[in-house]
Amino acid sequence: MRNQSMNDGKFMRIAIMKAREGIRHGQAPFGACIVRKGKVLVSSHNAVFGHTDITAHAEINALHSACRKLGKIDLSDCVIYSTTEPCPMCFTACHWAKIPKVFYGTKIADAAKYGFSEWPISNRKMELLGKSKIRLVPGFMRKECLELFKEWTKRKGARAY
Amino acid sequence: MRNQSMNDGKFMRIAIMKAREGIRHGQAPFGACIVRKGKVLVSSHNAVFGHTDITAHAEINALHSACRKLGKIDLSDCVIYSTTEPCPMCFTACHWAKIPKVFYGTKIADAAKYGFSEWPISNRKMELLGKSKIRLVPGFMRKECLELFKEWTKRKGARAY
Repeated sequence: MRNQSMNDGKFMRIAIMKAREGIRHGQAPFGACIVRKGKVLVSSHNAVFGHTDITAHAEINALHSACRKLGKIDLSDCVIYSTTEPCPMCFTACHWAKIPKVFYGTKIADAAKYGFSEWPISNRKMELLGKSKIRLVPGFMRKECLELFKEWTKRKGARAY
Repeated sequence: MRNQSMNDGKFMRIAIMKAREGIRHGQAPFGACIVRKGKVLVSSHNAVFGHTDITAHAEINALHSACRKLGKIDLSDCVIYSTTEPCPMCFTACHWAKIPKVFYGTKIADAAKYGFSEWPISNRKMELLGKSKIRLVPGFMRKECLELFKEWTKRKGARAY
């Protein structure tokens, strides 16, 4: 149990490192890591500005890469670690991919506070409406994930969307 | 007014043709067309199987292409025509892109009836929860759009996800 928890921390730290890499390159402060059978499969940061693509959120990028890497669209043997609660776009993408468990740090409401035009629809709300069985682990390493927003605001030219 | 309506029909027909092109290539029966200032900007079909990417819905593909083509992430001067009501992933993507108006033919419930693992969360519901101002034009050319599902089921090896 303790090892599992330590591993979860390790995987979230990879998502955080990825978000930090994005921040350094002028991207929005979000990262995601997809793990399969205890091993990191892919990690991605938000690339909305870098790719000039409004859909290029960290989770969408990670799900895309994971599918391509495995050669399948069913990721039911994977877990995702997101620095921020996936937006309804990304959370629905997790549903489509059959991801059974989502760890996240900060909330959609935190991202909104920092200027992102989030729809205020929580994963819990989506889950209830969708009668979904995705397991949520909210607030995981929240403090470290919140730090990403603070680092991002210090960057010259930081902009939300 | 009549011309506008005729144009809307023309644009939806392009989405339908695109969906049909996808069906011929073994894809799921969904198409989308994005129009800017009265001209077709992009049209895409679902490519979940073709790209081995669970996020490659028609609307996500079209939004991605539109952003790349215009070199911007703000599509507030565009309108989207979808053969089926965008799923919550795609509809939230429309929100992020600031698309002000969405025309759609069949409903999420129709796609579910044909075997797609849709979350039963309508655009109207998402709009209310998100306090959004996206204008919806539901049931537009529904009969023609419904035909796509029928054509698709007749294909050997048709599969939903």
